[in-house]
Amino acid sequence: MSDDVTDDVTDDQVSLRRDARRNRAALVAAAEVEFALEGPDVPLDAVVRRAGVGRGTLYRHFAGRVDLAVAIYERHITEHEAFVAEHEDEPDLVFRLLERMAEVQAHARGVAMVLARESDGEARIQHLIARIIAMFETTLARGREAGIVSPDMSASDLMLVLSMLEGALVGVPLDDARDVARRVVEIVTPALRSVPTPA
Amino acid sequence: MSDDVTDDVTDDQVSLRRDARRNRAALVAAAEVEFALEGPDVPLDAVVRRAGVGRGTLYRHFAGRVDLAVAIYERHITEHEAFVAEHEDEPDLVFRLLERMAEVQAHARGVAMVLARESDGEARIQHLIARIIAMFETTLARGREAGIVSPDMSASDLMLVLSMLEGALVGVPLDDARDVARRVVEIVTPALRSVPTPA
Repeated sequence: MSDDVTDDVTDDQVSLRRDARRNRAALVAAAEVEFALEGPDVPLDAVVRRAGVGRGTLYRHFAGRVDLAVAIYERHITEHEAFVAEHEDEPDLVFRLLERMAEVQAHARGVAMVLARESDGEARIQHLIARIIAMFETTLARGREAGIVSPDMSASDLMLVLSMLEGALVGVPLDDARDVARRVVEIVTPALRSVPTPA
Repeated sequence: MSDDVTDDVTDDQVSLRRDARRNRAALVAAAEVEFALEGPDVPLDAVVRRAGVGRGTLYRHFAGRVDLAVAIYERHITEHEAFVAEHEDEPDLVFRLLERMAEVQAHARGVAMVLARESDGEARIQHLIARIIAMFETTLARGREAGIVSPDMSASDLMLVLSMLEGALVGVPLDDARDVARRVVEIVTPALRSVPTPA
């Protein structure tokens, strides 16, 4: 983590920035839990309480619910990117990435719903969707080179799989969500696997 | 079609019943088109206008929007059952049933949303879900006997596939819905196919 500290900045300013970053992260983490447990309509007061900050702090960082949802989504994608970077030489990475995304989606209920209900929800996450597509393209290419991923599956097919996953999770109790998400991945995996053609 | 006519019933009564059935069918067909074109919130006046009946006729047959959605869903299931009955000897029937359901779901947008938003929406279609599960069980069993359907796929997996399909169709323009639905079926089909085990 870089602190962007220059010699002109006092220790107090550094400490303030650190606090701000910590508060923002606490709010994102709290919002993720509250959306998952209470759904997309959870009062933001519950988020503030769980984060242990004041309501003013919330509005210093986020205009509201949608901003929080975008921030949660962005954090997940950053984590997925770190995972991809760490394992980039492994040919089966696309399968593992999909499992990982499914698991995160199973826990992060409500986030997709907050975004889906906004008329500009999709526009707000276009830059994040581009990052997901880039990950799919990289990992699909790796798997295809190794001959273990079907050439018929594209990054946009995998985006479709994420929508399918979201549909499968609608109305599923949080306790069952992980099992349902895993089953969805099992159901789509054979299509992703390369079928050896007869010589 | 049985008319349930007995000798005690006058010709006028028969004719009234026929009119009532015709009006009801026209309302269900009109609601299907309006939900698909205008979404789940379409004013019921538009349904009445398209059906060419009066508003009183609507409320003689249906308590409201949810009743209409249930009736549309039921009509689809009745049609799928007729299809299954007609082709019951064909071992690949489960694949064709799934394709058929996907195509109908792609056209019948809005119906699922009307039901999903009602707190008792799922309860209202429990009897219809039981009929879908019965079709899946019959057709899966036929395919398994013939050795072309994987023993790992259950009727509840196929119910999950219907939810996945619904998720894939969220936000997709009506013109693209059929292509998206077909792609979903292509993506789940390999899991449904029996993989020959090496002897």
